Amino acid sequence: MDKLIFLSNDDGYSAEGINQLAEMVREFGDVFVVAPDSGRSGSGMSISSHTPVRNTFVRHQEGTETRGNLTIWSCTGTPDDCAKMAFEKLLPRVPDLVIGGINHGDNCAVNAHYSGTMAIALEGCLKGVPSIAFSSGKMEQDADFSYMTEMVQKIVKMVLENGLPSGVCLNVNMPNVEQFEGLKICKMGMGDWHEEWQERDHPRGGKYYWIAGYYAPHEEDKESDTWAFNHGYVAVTPIQLDLTAYSFMEQLKKRLE
Amino acid sequence: MDKLIFLSNDDGYSAEGINQLAEMVREFGDVFVVAPDSGRSGSGMSISSHTPVRNTFVRHQEGTETRGNLTIWSCTGTPDDCAKMAFEKLLPRVPDLVIGGINHGDNCAVNAHYSGTMAIALEGCLKGVPSIAFSSGKMEQDADFSYMTEMVQKIVKMVLENGLPSGVCLNVNMPNVEQFEGLKICKMGMGDWHEEWQERDHPRGGKYYWIAGYYAPHEEDKESDTWAFNHGYVAVTPIQLDLTAYSFMEQLKKRLE
Repeated sequence: MDKLIFLSNDDGYSAEGINQLAEMVREFGDVFVVAPDSGRSGSGMSISSHTPVRNTFVRHQEGTETRGNLTIWSCTGTPDDCAKMAFEKLLPRVPDLVIGGINHGDNCAVNAHYSGTMAIALEGCLKGVPSIAFSSGKMEQDADFSYMTEMVQKIVKMVLENGLPSGVCLNVNMPNVEQFEGLKICKMGMGDWHEEWQERDHPRGGKYYWIAGYYAPHEEDKESDTWAFNHGYVAVTPIQLDLTAYSFMEQLKKRLE
Repeated sequence: MDKLIFLSNDDGYSAEGINQLAEMVREFGDVFVVAPDSGRSGSGMSISSHTPVRNTFVRHQEGTETRGNLTIWSCTGTPDDCAKMAFEKLLPRVPDLVIGGINHGDNCAVNAHYSGTMAIALEGCLKGVPSIAFSSGKMEQDADFSYMTEMVQKIVKMVLENGLPSGVCLNVNMPNVEQFEGLKICKMGMGDWHEEWQERDHPRGGKYYWIAGYYAPHEEDKESDTWAFNHGYVAVTPIQLDLTAYSFMEQLKKRLE
């Protein structure tokens, strides 16, 4: 009960995912939410360089003997702004754990790069706190994520007890299934998006576009999070902050230095 | 002269950086720009999930015997949107090279995560095209980047001739110095931001915040891009799409599977 857990997401503070997640983890300690005031899907690690950011207090609920306090703020910024704001302006102290999610929709494979949910975990990781991103295959706005409770609590408990290596956080994706096949430690799948823009006619002339399309993996890699997720497993991918392609450094030195 | 080079940035299509870069690389082939209609610093890999995107043709300049054509479009989306739009809707074919930049301001170290310039290179890399992000220590809006020409052309020539490994792109940062000490192949530096929010009073009440602060490296790591950049070297960091923390997978399996 002495732990402090910071939560944010990219679906907004009022989304089912983050509110259900808060209840799942209150048995481990106090839960403090700073989340966007509305949906911010696909925010990546963007920050609000060109617009000011405001915070609004939403509510506070006292804990019980077995469950921590719950405090919720909304913020006009990006998911990454929310994490930065929480650490510097709103949290009572450095938290013991940072969680992004539960995202309505998965963030498997290279899609983690575009994900605001993942950004929260990466930002927590940058700040030296063990961090996890949770995403679900359930996308509906009124989704019931209770089927994830046991797995979420298992992973949170492990991380609270053991921590994570410096510069490493977790990307956890849970498929929308009756019963999980199990849990798999995975690598990030590779793939790309196709037919990414849907064209529309503007009523006063000209075209505009909505980003859309479908994701296709490059290959069926059984070690990948995409494969695990598509086959009913909870996919846990350890993600690192350090993007250096070490294996290419020597060759690059020969070519450029 | 048969090459097609795609350029974008996060400072906007009218910025000095991208326009000077276009002229630096026209000797290698046709240059096609799709860049944001205004500044989008700190965009990371964000995409416009919640707003429609429009494109506007800016201008076309025919090439000469020794310099390729130059075509410029502006786009209301993020830097990553620009790359996606270019590939699917605007470029005449898949380009031979993708370049983000020249960014007004460096993108060393973990700051690559927040960078729209880097996002363009990562998106190009996702699409299987050799990709480079160029950033400069010069930040002024009217900066003269001609001091970078020789190094930019050397790196572009090398990449056009040799390609880059699948899933690897380059993050190139050039300090604002009279004379470079040389070129160093680096790893991504680690560090964090401090005093990230500047508080202001709104004239009609309440507080709002601007993101600001200063970046501090965790340690003086002589292999890092930050060190090279701060010591007058052109810092070239090979960056990979695959974020998997492979070194932690076995331990994680023992703890969770």
